[in-house]
Amino acid sequence: MTVQGVKRRGLMLVLSSPSGAGKTTLVKRLLGDDPDSFFMSVSLTTRTPRPGEVDGRDYKFVEKARFVAMRDNGELLEWAEVFGNFYGTERQQVESAVKQGHDVLFDIDWQGARQLAESMPQDLVRVFVLPPSGKALAARLHTRNEDAPEVVAKRMAKAADEISHWPEYDYVLINDDIETCFSGLKAIIAAERLRRERQVGLSAFVREIESEL
Amino acid sequence: MTVQGVKRRGLMLVLSSPSGAGKTTLVKRLLGDDPDSFFMSVSLTTRTPRPGEVDGRDYKFVEKARFVAMRDNGELLEWAEVFGNFYGTERQQVESAVKQGHDVLFDIDWQGARQLAESMPQDLVRVFVLPPSGKALAARLHTRNEDAPEVVAKRMAKAADEISHWPEYDYVLINDDIETCFSGLKAIIAAERLRRERQVGLSAFVREIESEL
Repeated sequence: MTVQGVKRRGLMLVLSSPSGAGKTTLVKRLLGDDPDSFFMSVSLTTRTPRPGEVDGRDYKFVEKARFVAMRDNGELLEWAEVFGNFYGTERQQVESAVKQGHDVLFDIDWQGARQLAESMPQDLVRVFVLPPSGKALAARLHTRNEDAPEVVAKRMAKAADEISHWPEYDYVLINDDIETCFSGLKAIIAAERLRRERQVGLSAFVREIESEL
Repeated sequence: MTVQGVKRRGLMLVLSSPSGAGKTTLVKRLLGDDPDSFFMSVSLTTRTPRPGEVDGRDYKFVEKARFVAMRDNGELLEWAEVFGNFYGTERQQVESAVKQGHDVLFDIDWQGARQLAESMPQDLVRVFVLPPSGKALAARLHTRNEDAPEVVAKRMAKAADEISHWPEYDYVLINDDIETCFSGLKAIIAAERLRRERQVGLSAFVREIESEL
């Protein structure tokens, strides 16, 4: 047996942050940087597609009745209702990816993270991204001109709600500088891949070493 | 409050491996690479200095009676007896370093790691370094010509004993290639520094953000 006999179980990376803290940039860079390993978990949603959103890439858009049926059938790993719309993650695609050694990236909020922590705690790595200041965050939320003022106000309230859940995460990144922040994220992933429990086949590998001593 | 208001609590890095698996090289590179942050915990020992060993750098050499008095007085964080000699770590120097945000590196075996896990579990990061194969390890143990054959035999038995404790560690590195192995170690350290619990002052930082929203 060689080092090649040691395989890796994938991890489930949850990256949460208030809207406007730079999470989307981090996700894009991560997927671009490591396209062979990371699967983006594409959430189901019952909301209507926004201009430019592609079904199956940004979200899987489903009817409410279908979503509820899947949820009640235990086919969802997590789900949430946000502004009257449902969002959720299909269990089957995540479980098979992780078993095959692929990492799965989740762009979900604290409610989803909490449910994943209940269903698949050992595979989960939770990272919270904080803005460098409240002023910076507020400024970023206001420069998205496509939305109506009441949508911005709702998003601000949601940002405050989201931020209050930072203590439920394993790692905290402060996005003061995107390069430093991304380096930190990459280090977290590299390190978590080296965790003992994620290296499948170590027992056999060590037995082989012991037999040669 | 700025990001500078968030400080770091140091971590205690335990790097264990069988003798001959490359741990000493990793330790030297780590201390050379990051001299401002890492403190090498200098163990106390009751054994006689080997040629070239410097008191206070390689070990703090103490008399057996003094060692036993310190141990019985609760001044040691961990201690062990190996080949009839005592080894141990002073509690005070580690606790104050970690509080001041310095990381402390330990070059100790599984017995020491186990005691540290009892005394300071939250600060501890345990990394086990495995050789790429048993043959490679045996070869390395035999090329140290300074020691007598019975010392080599003893070391081989100790290597087998040490290896059997790999499941007690948080991370496992296979030293197939020293560069890859060192990169992995650096990632583990960078990631562990970003753990929520190690960032002191995050609560106040987040309160400041919330007040600005």
